[in-house]
Amino acid sequence: MKPHISIITLAVTNLEKSVRFYRDGLGLKTRGIVGADYDYGAAAFFDLQPGLSLALWPRESLAHEAGIEPQPPAMTEFMLSHCVTEREFVDEVMQQAAQSGGDVVKAAHDTLLGGYAGIFKDPDGHLWEVAWNPETPAESADAAPARQDTNDQNPAP
Amino acid sequence: MKPHISIITLAVTNLEKSVRFYRDGLGLKTRGIVGADYDYGAAAFFDLQPGLSLALWPRESLAHEAGIEPQPPAMTEFMLSHCVTEREFVDEVMQQAAQSGGDVVKAAHDTLLGGYAGIFKDPDGHLWEVAWNPETPAESADAAPARQDTNDQNPAP
Repeated sequence: MKPHISIITLAVTNLEKSVRFYRDGLGLKTRGIVGADYDYGAAAFFDLQPGLSLALWPRESLAHEAGIEPQPPAMTEFMLSHCVTEREFVDEVMQQAAQSGGDVVKAAHDTLLGGYAGIFKDPDGHLWEVAWNPETPAESADAAPARQDTNDQNPAP
Repeated sequence: MKPHISIITLAVTNLEKSVRFYRDGLGLKTRGIVGADYDYGAAAFFDLQPGLSLALWPRESLAHEAGIEPQPPAMTEFMLSHCVTEREFVDEVMQQAAQSGGDVVKAAHDTLLGGYAGIFKDPDGHLWEVAWNPETPAESADAAPARQDTNDQNPAP
């Protein structure tokens, strides 16, 4: 398999509400809800970096497409990390998320390796990490994973 | 927030087993498990397209980092789509996944709009869609979302 992911699809409970969070709250671009004329077709797509899209799709539609039963929501299946180029951008994005209906799960904090990061969840409980790492530029091919902040042995609860 | 995701972190039950699936099975490049000397630090990172990494992290570590309790695994939280440039590559990747310990959730099938797609799950039940769309080139900024195959009103179960 080539090392490439084209779409990250998030299961949502209320498509309209989640679209408002990502479009009106976080400011991601979208054509809005498309495919609503088709059974299980309603979805929304957001442009990320070239070659990658974020999609929102009702949980029932995702389950139907896969041919499995919808399962109870779970917050500890995955996390998306948004790395920023300046330390203060972490605070800005965390505030933006909180003001848009997201919940701060872990406030922005210094990490052991000199970074700065916080975690919020979207209206469906999907986790987003917002991270700044002084040693590596974000948004570059060489960006080091922010997961390194887990080397902090005493993270804030 | 800038439209950019830097890392997709997947929660796993058995880190070594999941690393074998993605590295030895699917052929993604990794330095292997890093951070094992630190509490909750063990993780593996795989290079995807420039600026994006896939990370595997034990569910307990993800939960610890976020300050929440680990929740029972759920398959219907998200899906990752891997778009390919040739129809036959769908079969190749699906076979590769099946031979590597993944399970075929939905066999490759023609979609209503003329595409071809299948779904497999990784050892932790995380869903991957492998999709070919004849109208749009994969791995380009203009790639249309494969989610359009949900316009198929009579998908195979």
